[in-house]
Parts: sequence; C-alpha cells; structure tokens
Amino acid sequence: MELKIGLIQMKTVDSKEENLMKAEKMIKEAVGKGANFIVLPEMFNCPYETSNFIHYAEEERGRTWGFLAKIAKENNIYLVGGSIPEIEGDKTYNTSYVFNNTGAQIAKHRKIHLFDIDVVGGQKFKESDTLTSGNDLAIFVTPFGKMAVIICYDLRFPELSRLLVQKGVKLIIVPASFNMTTGPLHWELLFRARAVDNQVYMIGAAGARNYDSSYIGYGNSLIVDPFGKITDKLTEREEILVTEIDIAQVEAIRNQIPVLKHLRHDLYELIYKK
Amino acid sequence: MELKIGLIQMKTVDSKEENLMKAEKMIKEAVGKGANFIVLPEMFNCPYETSNFIHYAEEERGRTWGFLAKIAKENNIYLVGGSIPEIEGDKTYNTSYVFNNTGAQIAKHRKIHLFDIDVVGGQKFKESDTLTSGNDLAIFVTPFGKMAVIICYDLRFPELSRLLVQKGVKLIIVPASFNMTTGPLHWELLFRARAVDNQVYMIGAAGARNYDSSYIGYGNSLIVDPFGKITDKLTEREEILVTEIDIAQVEAIRNQIPVLKHLRHDLYELIYKK
Repeated sequence: MELKIGLIQMKTVDSKEENLMKAEKMIKEAVGKGANFIVLPEMFNCPYETSNFIHYAEEERGRTWGFLAKIAKENNIYLVGGSIPEIEGDKTYNTSYVFNNTGAQIAKHRKIHLFDIDVVGGQKFKESDTLTSGNDLAIFVTPFGKMAVIICYDLRFPELSRLLVQKGVKLIIVPASFNMTTGPLHWELLFRARAVDNQVYMIGAAGARNYDSSYIGYGNSLIVDPFGKITDKLTEREEILVTEIDIAQVEAIRNQIPVLKHLRHDLYELIYKK
Repeated sequence: MELKIGLIQMKTVDSKEENLMKAEKMIKEAVGKGANFIVLPEMFNCPYETSNFIHYAEEERGRTWGFLAKIAKENNIYLVGGSIPEIEGDKTYNTSYVFNNTGAQIAKHRKIHLFDIDVVGGQKFKESDTLTSGNDLAIFVTPFGKMAVIICYDLRFPELSRLLVQKGVKLIIVPASFNMTTGPLHWELLFRARAVDNQVYMIGAAGARNYDSSYIGYGNSLIVDPFGKITDKLTEREEILVTEIDIAQVEAIRNQIPVLKHLRHDLYELIYKK
C-alpha cells in the first residue's frame, strides 16, 4: 500500500464544534482525493492563544478525542490529530493523539519544549504560563514504516529528531504554528535541516493564516524529502494538500551520503535518559 | 577591537609554491582592506584529489606551517590556515592550523568525519582511501570571543557543532569544499541550520571553482549570522570578502529565542567521550 498523505491547513474560530466540523469536511475532501494518512495542524480545535488553552482543554477520551477516533475508523485512515489542549489533574498539555485506521489510539505526544520567546520588534509568546511540558517520545509503527510526532517548537531542538531517528523513525510529523516573525526566518530552514541531517521525511502541518487572531500563524504546510528538498507546499490560505510519499527514498539516500553510518559514536553520543 | 574577517576564496594549481604565493597575495589584499582575522579554504596548498594528498603532505612545522606562522606575525592577524594534508608517522590527515597575531599556533583541527559518498548520477568521493580521521575538538580563545574550526564534511554532523557550542563557542569556522552536487543541494542550508540551532556565527571558506579539476568545488564562501541569515557571500570565482562581525549578536539573539536554555537536559544529553 502506498502512503498518501493529506495535510489539512484549516483556519480555527472560537467555536470548538465549528472547528471540528471544519476539520471533518476537509478530511473528507482529502480522503476523496485518495489520502490514507491525514494530519491536522497544531491546536486545531481552538484559537492559538495561551489564555484560551485551559478553556478548550479536554481529558483523554473526551469530545475531540472521540471525534478523531470515529473519523479515523469511518474513513479507514491513519489520523494524526494535530494537537489540542489536554487536561490531566491540574495540568494542561499541548497534545497530539494518533489513531490507526480502526480508530485505535497508537501514539500520543505532549509537546516537550514549550515556546517562550521575546523577539525585539517581533513576536512575544509565553506558552509556559499555562502549559506543562511532556516527557515522552511518540514513536509509532504503521504499514508504511516507523514514524513519530513532535510539535512546533520541538522542531528547533536537533537532539529530539536525532533521538527519534536513532530509534528507527523514517518520517517525522510536526503539527506546528510558526508566526509572522519566525515563519519567514526559519520555517522552511528547520524542516529542511532536520530532513538533511537525519535523511528522513519531514511533514509540517500548519493552520491557515488568520489576521483576526492575536497570534498570526504563518501557514505554509509542507513536505520535505530526505535530501532536504521541499516537494510540496501550501500557501497561507485554508486549503488541503494530498500527495504520495515513497518511504523507500529514505534508505536510498542514506546509502548515497551515509551520514548516519559516519557518526563518530566513539567521540560523542546523544543519550536518552528515560 | 572589532572583528573584521577576511575570506580568501582562491583557486589552487599543482604547484605548492604557487599556491602559497597566491594565498599571500590575497591575504595582503584583505589586510589592506582592514581584515584582522583571515580564513583560507580547505586544502589550499594542493589540488583537492585524494590521490594527491600524500604527495603534498607535510609534518607539523613544515613548509606551509612556517609560511602561515610568518604571514600571521608579519601582518599582525589571526589566521585560520584553511587546511592542508598533514603527515605524522604513516598517517595523513586533513588538518587546519590556527595562528594568532604573533605567529603562534593556538589550535589545530584534524577533520573528524571523512567524506565517503556515492550519489547516484552525481558526485563520488572516498577520502578515507588516503586519509585518517582526527579525534579532537579545536576550540581557541581570541580577543573577539571563543571560536572553533571544523572542516567541510564535519558540518553535516549536528553533534559536533553542538558540542563546541556547549563549550562556549560563538563562531565556527569551516574551511570546506562542497562540490557541484552537494553544493547546490546543501551548502547554504547546512551553514544556516548550524547557525540557527546553535545561535552562532558560521563562516564557510571555500576555494574558487576550477572546472579543470577532477573535483569541481562549489565556491560560494559565506558568512551566516546567529539568526541564520546569510550576511555576506562570494560567487564561484577567485575573490576575497572582508566584513565586520559583531559577536555580541550571539548573546542578543540567544536572549530573544532562548533555545539553548530550553534544551531538555533532563530528557536527553549529548556527551563528549574524551
């Protein structure tokens, strides 16, 4: 079976139900175009505002979780549920749930690196005001190969992608929402860098740009191949992308420039402490 | 004192003496434009051909070493001597010597990762046929800040640059010779990636393109700031670049997007084994 990825670059509004209905409509459109593996953007069921996360947060197996499981099963697709605010006890997380085509949850990623920045004359944002960071890798096995999910700011840390690749991951999915400062500066660069350093596919799933929002997302969802080439890219508007991916390219490219074999494990080592 | 970098993008010929004379002429031109810190390209005293390295190789304190030390002192400059083939016992290395403005050697880097690639329909090259890899970090302190040298293929390994930055390095110099396959694909990307991930200055010093050579270098020497912006870049021709660098930018940018503070040392750690 070929891997046919569908990226859902949707715009969010204040109403959670409206966001879910929008997601369903766009997912069905992608399925209609043959997608069997669909990815939603970061915080797709609420506006991207730190103060809002707590109001939209759900416990695991809540409204949005159930909605995603049902859609995956009904459409016979793998579904990376972008991310949503998750609540457990008194803590809120930025969480991505992954479902297989029977609607079973096969992975869960809580954003590991929280986004606290203050760019001179640019974007300020402090996610740690309201969110708690996760501590686990989200690796999962599919008929297409081993994959993993990280979220947005996690992308800036080469250690995390490298750890995943050391564990056999060949495709990394990144629900993300860069902004109008960091987007033009670093969006494509970071996806291409992780792809080339690790010789993996990198998938960036962003929301559509919304100038009415306090945090204006950059859009530009994209797919980067293991040579670091951007093979597919959306604009800033609300739209979908459906494209086939040949995971075998990962091994082909690793044979040509065998950086992973040339790592000097005798001199340095990246260790995972869990 | 301001740091004023001069990059010498020179073409090499078969005659070692001619290469040294060319280097001296271009260094003096850069000094005339105010450069106080000069960088030569990889294998600047010989053609870039694996079979040739052994014939041009010198022991430490040999002809080229003495030439570099003298030029550094005479011109009152810091000098990163690109790289040359170094011989010690029965082994040959790709080595960069660094001199201060009194002509004293203050660092030495032997290329750690050897370049063995075989791109389908593109470049093939096997450096390990004739060279031995180095095992040490080349960090040195200058009045401008702490710096380090790595060589060409070393750039593809994010671990190495991260180790240097963990030890306080703010500027990484890379004598390098990408080719007409990897240059267009990855030259700018890799320098920008290391700069952004580590929020350091990255300096790439390449030789000029020589279509008569069996290995056609890409040229395009460049300087990338800690935000990942290419601030200066040469063409493929033989030419020099002289430009001022404000190392204080490193700290300024690290305060705005504090990725190095956000590293999850509780979850993962990059360790240096020496």
